[in-house]
Amino acid sequence: MPKAKTRIKPRSASRRPSRKVGNQVALAGTVRPERGRKPELKYIPWNTVPIEDLNPLLQRHFVVGQDIMVARVLMKKGCIVPLHSHHNEQVTYILEGALKFWIDGKEIVVRAGEVLTIPRNMPHKAEALEDTIDLDVFNPPRADWIEKTDKYLRAAK
Amino acid sequence: MPKAKTRIKPRSASRRPSRKVGNQVALAGTVRPERGRKPELKYIPWNTVPIEDLNPLLQRHFVVGQDIMVARVLMKKGCIVPLHSHHNEQVTYILEGALKFWIDGKEIVVRAGEVLTIPRNMPHKAEALEDTIDLDVFNPPRADWIEKTDKYLRAAK
Repeated sequence: MPKAKTRIKPRSASRRPSRKVGNQVALAGTVRPERGRKPELKYIPWNTVPIEDLNPLLQRHFVVGQDIMVARVLMKKGCIVPLHSHHNEQVTYILEGALKFWIDGKEIVVRAGEVLTIPRNMPHKAEALEDTIDLDVFNPPRADWIEKTDKYLRAAK
Repeated sequence: MPKAKTRIKPRSASRRPSRKVGNQVALAGTVRPERGRKPELKYIPWNTVPIEDLNPLLQRHFVVGQDIMVARVLMKKGCIVPLHSHHNEQVTYILEGALKFWIDGKEIVVRAGEVLTIPRNMPHKAEALEDTIDLDVFNPPRADWIEKTDKYLRAAK
C-alpha cells in the first residue's frame, strides 16, 4: 500500500459559512438543515481545532462528520449551562471533573468516567462542580453551535 | 429541586435480547432495524458496563442511546481490525495510544488526542501500534455489535 499521503484537514465546522437563522430562545423544535454535509474522511488532531471562548468559564471546540458532532467542552468550576433543550440526541461523557445536571426532575452528578444519555428535547441545566472536560456527542450536529447562534451559552457566566 | 433520586441504569445494550440476523461477511448495506430504541435518560458509569473480550488483544464495551452508540475499544499493541465496512457513520477519537488505519488508499496514524471521521460504507483496516484506548462513535448504533454478530472482530487475533 502506498505510503501515507495523509490528508490532514484540521478544519472545524465553525469555519463553514455562517447562515443566519435569527434569534432564538427555545432551541427545541427549530427546523434546520440537518443533512447535506458532505461525507468526508477527515483526520483532525484536536490541537488543530480552534477553541472558542464562549464566556469566562466556558470554552469549546468540535468536530463534525455527516450526522455526528463530537465536542470537547472545557468548563471551569462554577460554569453554568442554563436550562435549555434541543432536538439533537446527546450523549455526554465526562473525561475529567464533575458536572451536575438538573434533568427529568432529578439531580445527577456525572463524574469522570461516567456517561449520560439525553433524549431529544429533554430540558437540562448543568453546573461544573470542578474544572471539567466534557465530551459531548450529538446527532444530528448542533446547527446552533456551528452557526454561533447559541446565545444561551454565550450569555451565561 | 428534590435531592438526587438518581436513576442508575448501568445497562449495556448488549443485554438486549439477541436477534439473529444470520451470518455475514460484508457488513455494508445490510438492512437492519435502525430506529425504535426507546429514548431514555440513562446515567451510566463506564465501570458498570461489562467489558467483552473479543479476542486476546481486543476488548470493548459500549453505551447506546437512541441513534448514537459510544464505544470504548481497548486494544493491545498488535491488535488488528480486519478490513471491513459498515453503513454506520463512525467518528474515532483516540484517547490513549496510536491506531494505524488503512483507508481510502492512504495510511493514517491516529494518535492520542486525534480524531478520524469515517464516512458510511468506507472500507477500513486498523492496527494498534501501541496499547490503545479508542473511543468510537457511531450513527446509527452498530447492530452487529449489539447482536454479537461481528465475527470479523471475534475471529481476528
